[in-house]
Amino acid sequence: MRNVDENTITQEVLERIANTPNPRVKEIMSALIRHLHDFAREVRLTEAEWFEGIRFLTDTGHITDEKRQEFILLSDVLGLSMLVIAQNHRKPAGCTEATVFGPFYIANAPEYPLGADLAQGAKGEPCYVQATVRGPDGEPVPRATVEVWQADAAGFYDVQYGGGEHRARGVLRADDQGRVYFKSVLAEAYPIPTDGPVGRMLDATARHPWRPAHMHFMVDAPGYERLITHVFRDGDRYLDSDAVFGVRSSLITTWDRHEAGLMPDGASSAVPFYTLKFAFVLNRSK
Amino acid sequence: MRNVDENTITQEVLERIANTPNPRVKEIMSALIRHLHDFAREVRLTEAEWFEGIRFLTDTGHITDEKRQEFILLSDVLGLSMLVIAQNHRKPAGCTEATVFGPFYIANAPEYPLGADLAQGAKGEPCYVQATVRGPDGEPVPRATVEVWQADAAGFYDVQYGGGEHRARGVLRADDQGRVYFKSVLAEAYPIPTDGPVGRMLDATARHPWRPAHMHFMVDAPGYERLITHVFRDGDRYLDSDAVFGVRSSLITTWDRHEAGLMPDGASSAVPFYTLKFAFVLNRSK
Repeated sequence: MRNVDENTITQEVLERIANTPNPRVKEIMSALIRHLHDFAREVRLTEAEWFEGIRFLTDTGHITDEKRQEFILLSDVLGLSMLVIAQNHRKPAGCTEATVFGPFYIANAPEYPLGADLAQGAKGEPCYVQATVRGPDGEPVPRATVEVWQADAAGFYDVQYGGGEHRARGVLRADDQGRVYFKSVLAEAYPIPTDGPVGRMLDATARHPWRPAHMHFMVDAPGYERLITHVFRDGDRYLDSDAVFGVRSSLITTWDRHEAGLMPDGASSAVPFYTLKFAFVLNRSK
Repeated sequence: MRNVDENTITQEVLERIANTPNPRVKEIMSALIRHLHDFAREVRLTEAEWFEGIRFLTDTGHITDEKRQEFILLSDVLGLSMLVIAQNHRKPAGCTEATVFGPFYIANAPEYPLGADLAQGAKGEPCYVQATVRGPDGEPVPRATVEVWQADAAGFYDVQYGGGEHRARGVLRADDQGRVYFKSVLAEAYPIPTDGPVGRMLDATARHPWRPAHMHFMVDAPGYERLITHVFRDGDRYLDSDAVFGVRSSLITTWDRHEAGLMPDGASSAVPFYTLKFAFVLNRSK
């Protein structure tokens, strides 16, 4: 077909993919084409604006590497990540809710024994975490794998420093009663990285880049759905305006402050420390 | 706001950008957020599919450099480029229609005197081009700048070979009567690059990657709108299925084949050659 205009082109592109063998690929691509075209028509996108978009995506691709995922960050601040999570994790009442994965997960984090100090030099006030992993009927999930990652007191994840060290990040295995405990540092509110295209977009739309203090968890056990979530710190000023829309009330808990003295593991802390307790409830696999 | 779900999140993201100072940025971002969310809800995008999308965009960013613009190629094959051009170039009858810019333009192409051979070693049958540049009332546009770029007989642009040479690409200046003439090689149909993410997408949607033979032109003159267009070769088998939806009937013309002998410039060609004549009609600047 020749001489398509801004309206007839949509049907022409849809016809061009009519023979897509995988029906799900066809469904997704058809919807993508329709919505993309509708967007461009609705705002009457100009060529200069289109080129700004090309440049934005190019910059986003070029700043992305093994340690920084700016496309995930973009999806997060546009609310797409949380939308996708919400529509894929309708769970029975009582199961721990999922939230955004975020751009700072990295594969192959070190494994630690229960009780270990994951901080490994990360700066921050000591924080002792005691969690349990249970199933929907209250049954303990023994030997569940629990992966943890978090920012330090300066608001940075280990990967943001470069250098390759793992700090305040690690993999633990629950004991036979589904208990997990370890030491780390106190998570603090932090701004998502603003030195790239996503930061420019936040700035242009008059948004702050802050996330409320949280610790990331990914919990896996045979027979249960993988849980990717955070635990948030009650009282944080950004709980109602999280830059990535990830807060669930059920994921907020009290992180108790204690004066210097004995920690839950019996060791003595010379400085004040925090304790965090949380009960993860996994959904069964379908 | 906490506890957004896959429906309420859209309003929450829109409220977050409510204070965007530039009204056009606010309009575009609001529409982008609505259409992006509608797309994800309509297909009930899964997390695995979302991550495929993140990977696709990341790959597209990583293959893009100064010589290859995979995001423009993506926009082209999705019909977005042609849609944007169509809705921004409604011209008076008689003016030359615009078409896609494509990913193979590069800045700072060499300038040549009228009559020069732009091929500079590009492979292909000789082709002599004679064009005129006029305004909407038929007035010649003297000294118009005419930039030309095209693929060679193997279907590749100079930039695709690496090495930095400019072949079958250059800038000319019309004479006082708006005439432009030069020698190059015959343009042939060619497939857009399929060794990247866009190629994988075409493959997954059972589409061919071919573009009908064409020569790119960008024409600039003070007092007139910039014209970015192609001239297509009549009879090409891909005129009705251009991979980037760029064909306009008004841009198709006969490229005449001649046996070996005298060319329009009076020089003798030892091999058969082609002639191409085209009249560009510019719209006046607003």
